[in-house]
Amino acid sequence: MDKRVGVLGGGQLGAMLVEAANQLRIPVNVLDVGHSSAKQVSSIGTHVEGSFKDRDAIKQLAAISDLVTVEIEHVDTEILEEISDTVDVQPSWRTIRTIQDKYAQKQHLHEYGVATAKSMPLETASIEELKKASSILGLPVMLKSRREAYDGRGNFPVRTEDDFKPALEALEANKSLYAEKWANFRMELAVMVVKTKEIVLSFPTTETVHENSICKLTYTPARGVSNATNRKAQDLARKAVACFPGKGVFGVEMFLLEDDSLLVNEIAPRPHNSGHYTIEACRVSQYEAHLSAILDLPLRQEDLELREPAVMLNILGGEAKDSHLQIAEAALKDRWLKVHLYGKGQARKGRKMGHITVCAPTISEAERRIQPLIDLVDKGKPAQPNPPTQQPTKPTRPLVAIVMGSDSDLPKLAPTLQILHDFHIPYTTRITSAHRTPALLASYASSVASSGIRCVIAAAGGAAHLPGMFAAYTPLPVIGVPILPSVGDGMDSVLSILNMPRGVPVATVGLNNGVNAALLAVRILGAGDEGVRERYGRFMREAEEGVREKDRRLVEVGAEEYLEGMGK
Amino acid sequence: MDKRVGVLGGGQLGAMLVEAANQLRIPVNVLDVGHSSAKQVSSIGTHVEGSFKDRDAIKQLAAISDLVTVEIEHVDTEILEEISDTVDVQPSWRTIRTIQDKYAQKQHLHEYGVATAKSMPLETASIEELKKASSILGLPVMLKSRREAYDGRGNFPVRTEDDFKPALEALEANKSLYAEKWANFRMELAVMVVKTKEIVLSFPTTETVHENSICKLTYTPARGVSNATNRKAQDLARKAVACFPGKGVFGVEMFLLEDDSLLVNEIAPRPHNSGHYTIEACRVSQYEAHLSAILDLPLRQEDLELREPAVMLNILGGEAKDSHLQIAEAALKDRWLKVHLYGKGQARKGRKMGHITVCAPTISEAERRIQPLIDLVDKGKPAQPNPPTQQPTKPTRPLVAIVMGSDSDLPKLAPTLQILHDFHIPYTTRITSAHRTPALLASYASSVASSGIRCVIAAAGGAAHLPGMFAAYTPLPVIGVPILPSVGDGMDSVLSILNMPRGVPVATVGLNNGVNAALLAVRILGAGDEGVRERYGRFMREAEEGVREKDRRLVEVGAEEYLEGMGK
Repeated sequence: MDKRVGVLGGGQLGAMLVEAANQLRIPVNVLDVGHSSAKQVSSIGTHVEGSFKDRDAIKQLAAISDLVTVEIEHVDTEILEEISDTVDVQPSWRTIRTIQDKYAQKQHLHEYGVATAKSMPLETASIEELKKASSILGLPVMLKSRREAYDGRGNFPVRTEDDFKPALEALEANKSLYAEKWANFRMELAVMVVKTKEIVLSFPTTETVHENSICKLTYTPARGVSNATNRKAQDLARKAVACFPGKGVFGVEMFLLEDDSLLVNEIAPRPHNSGHYTIEACRVSQYEAHLSAILDLPLRQEDLELREPAVMLNILGGEAKDSHLQIAEAALKDRWLKVHLYGKGQARKGRKMGHITVCAPTISEAERRIQPLIDLVDKGKPAQPNPPTQQPTKPTRPLVAIVMGSDSDLPKLAPTLQILHDFHIPYTTRITSAHRTPALLASYASSVASSGIRCVIAAAGGAAHLPGMFAAYTPLPVIGVPILPSVGDGMDSVLSILNMPRGVPVATVGLNNGVNAALLAVRILGAGDEGVRERYGRFMREAEEGVREKDRRLVEVGAEEYLEGMGK
Repeated sequence: MDKRVGVLGGGQLGAMLVEAANQLRIPVNVLDVGHSSAKQVSSIGTHVEGSFKDRDAIKQLAAISDLVTVEIEHVDTEILEEISDTVDVQPSWRTIRTIQDKYAQKQHLHEYGVATAKSMPLETASIEELKKASSILGLPVMLKSRREAYDGRGNFPVRTEDDFKPALEALEANKSLYAEKWANFRMELAVMVVKTKEIVLSFPTTETVHENSICKLTYTPARGVSNATNRKAQDLARKAVACFPGKGVFGVEMFLLEDDSLLVNEIAPRPHNSGHYTIEACRVSQYEAHLSAILDLPLRQEDLELREPAVMLNILGGEAKDSHLQIAEAALKDRWLKVHLYGKGQARKGRKMGHITVCAPTISEAERRIQPLIDLVDKGKPAQPNPPTQQPTKPTRPLVAIVMGSDSDLPKLAPTLQILHDFHIPYTTRITSAHRTPALLASYASSVASSGIRCVIAAAGGAAHLPGMFAAYTPLPVIGVPILPSVGDGMDSVLSILNMPRGVPVATVGLNNGVNAALLAVRILGAGDEGVRERYGRFMREAEEGVREKDRRLVEVGAEEYLEGMGK
């Protein structure tokens, strides 16, 4: 812990790295111009004044540091290569060199068998070259700068041949360009990966929402992503990072395509915007993880686990000079929202000035709490042409799924829905038959836990396989409601649900007792949520008072009059 | 958010206050000697060099600040009174003046009807005066310095008349003394209270464990404290703080006596060691809360709630110069332990050099994770004479209660216990019969939710009333296990448990299926705990792999050989 760390760049990523280092009083020396964000939060290290691209300044930094790392990849890797003779550079200058050229990065990933969008370089920034690339890749293509591109700068979508000229004009300042096959993705995912000296670990899969090519929001866990896709994303991200030398955290951005396959979009060899949420939401933040990796401190996969679901909203510079401060001030109205301001001087439009993270016991509560801020950020914005990167705002996310084998069961479940409604518990209802839609049942039951559902109520009658089959696919508690069939006494329904084999439990309630199924679901949610448990306690007291009231009346009026009042 | 905050004192409390301010880039000016802890973590403010008792330095700080606060109460309140004409001082200098004289503090609390230990001042530090006080209060008494006392310095227990002389000698450097009636407490509690301009809020009740009069550990929530006592502690702490003018956070230390009554021990008009845990464990930390209170930022009771149970261990200076660094390094082996080092220069024995906080889904897991550090800290220490401030280590708190009507059911539940054990879920087992111990059942079932239990498994056979009766008393989910009685096919057990009236649900599993009862309990806990859900997912994959393996073998060897292997 007594190694001195030098950082090229003193922006917000450097600042949050310094804050993590401060906890352990690890001295960090920051190289950047002026009183940069990172320099503001520490006077432990010896800061160096100068550009992080300046050869002499970098050497000066190296001279006072035992280890040099970066908070930005647009650095001079020649100098990094040079200083690496005398000081440890992490991640390797080779990694940074490959990654900072986006085409070379894609080629490298391709060579190591990591799925990425098909790309080809333009030898010159000419219509002919772009035409050639378009004919090979097929229109539309994304024309991209190979270097110095971030937050959408350096990208231009080429939909038809008419876009050739404007695309080249827009990017002409950038000498080297490449074209990338258009990815029709249904959502963007990101995984922060940690490469230590011996192992590659990964943070949870995060859903990223971009607007005008700038990250706007992140949701962790990613909403509506199945366990299988989540695991695939983790595997792909770790595989992508494993093929680069050196240690540290890496941000891996991915496209999730319509067919649930994944492509790596790009990699950042440093802490990343999509990992800000880790500060409050994970056991160890991406900044602690980066320090741990480069300083060889212990780190295990369980350290990267999520403490609570989280939503992160970037605070960007706006029309007015102080728009970002207005957003920060509005966020302070709900102190579950953790506001991070970066202390950057000038607020350019679209410049990242801060961010807000909110954690909550459920992603739906986190969404509810961040919504006023999203509304504020969106206020007065021109309607967006709905670019593919943007997700529509989701309604409140359900906590209970009510599934039935047939719509004929729905009327029997009306009291179930009413009780959940009365307890303010959001639910969803689905028809999936174990026998008529076995594949739908399998895929829905497999993914339901990752979509935020916490408990399942399954109703079925006769050879009632639905509750048990659902329980076979999900780790969630499944409540089975036996429904009285049109023939027989219903013991077929009861026993089909109750007598599950050892190993796969179903919580069975009485025949047609959808009321108790709902109340059991509330008790189950209440086991992990004091607020729900409080409400349930109130319900019990009211129910008791109801019976006591009836008893008082029975004593008062006698059984005969009471019976009359019942119309019996 | 653009007000400049001046802080008298730059120790660890000031440092963590600065770290909270950094998030919002609130400029904080620190007054302290040298490169103090608080100055190390910020270069946003303009720090002032000098003692926080130095008149000119304080005036210099006031001149560059819009608001002055303290991280220590041993300041010159004459100067605070003087500067309060030109700068806002929070909390009020009157509050600090009253609190810094411990006897005056107790008198003040007494006047406002806040329960404290009976005390009386010594007019001179003489045997006669001490004798007089002892005869009025009754021996033993605690002899205390009125001023400048902290971490046990300035306290001397007087058990018999023989202690009069050594007590007065030990404290003779302190001019003014007072005697306090001895409090036979069974544990010490602390509550951080926030006084805003309009409301008094409180953080959760924390159990504090002292060793040699220095805070060693804190546990939140306090272990083995009933809901009623917890509420009483909260009320008392808020009442105690309400009677002091000004805004800010206050640490309220209390004694919980053998009869469950509470006394305020003392109050700190600033962030406090017993509130360190709030940084990781609460929605808003005590440092954010202090800034919010003094800067009139919004704050509500729900912002102070616990995200997860937490244990905090102080890192004290030890025998060797680097003992504290050894502890910090050992703590890094488990990264759930959050290490805070204060960057103080010299490690005096007993000096607070840092602290470690661990949060976990359950207090028992937090205790398990901190234990190796407690062992390390205790290693080589002389055995303690078990002073009243020290609590024996409590056993792990159960999450599942397994109740049965008769001990004859216990053997049937052996697999249930094994599964909970395998999932690391702490449980308790009880015999309560609905028919033979109805009163015990009622009282146990009524209180089980408040003792931290989250799910109940109840087993019974025949006229199996236990699960349903248990469900009638608790808002927790109750899983019923029908047990096969010595006569009949067990449908009596099944239906007695299953066919509960609408309004009182029991989650019923199959006859004798204690395995599924345990697995259902794990699923229920997993609904609110991602970690448990993860482990359950692993269990499902392993179970699947087990069956696949059997299938592979069956395909490989054929049914005949397979049957032979089964001994059939």
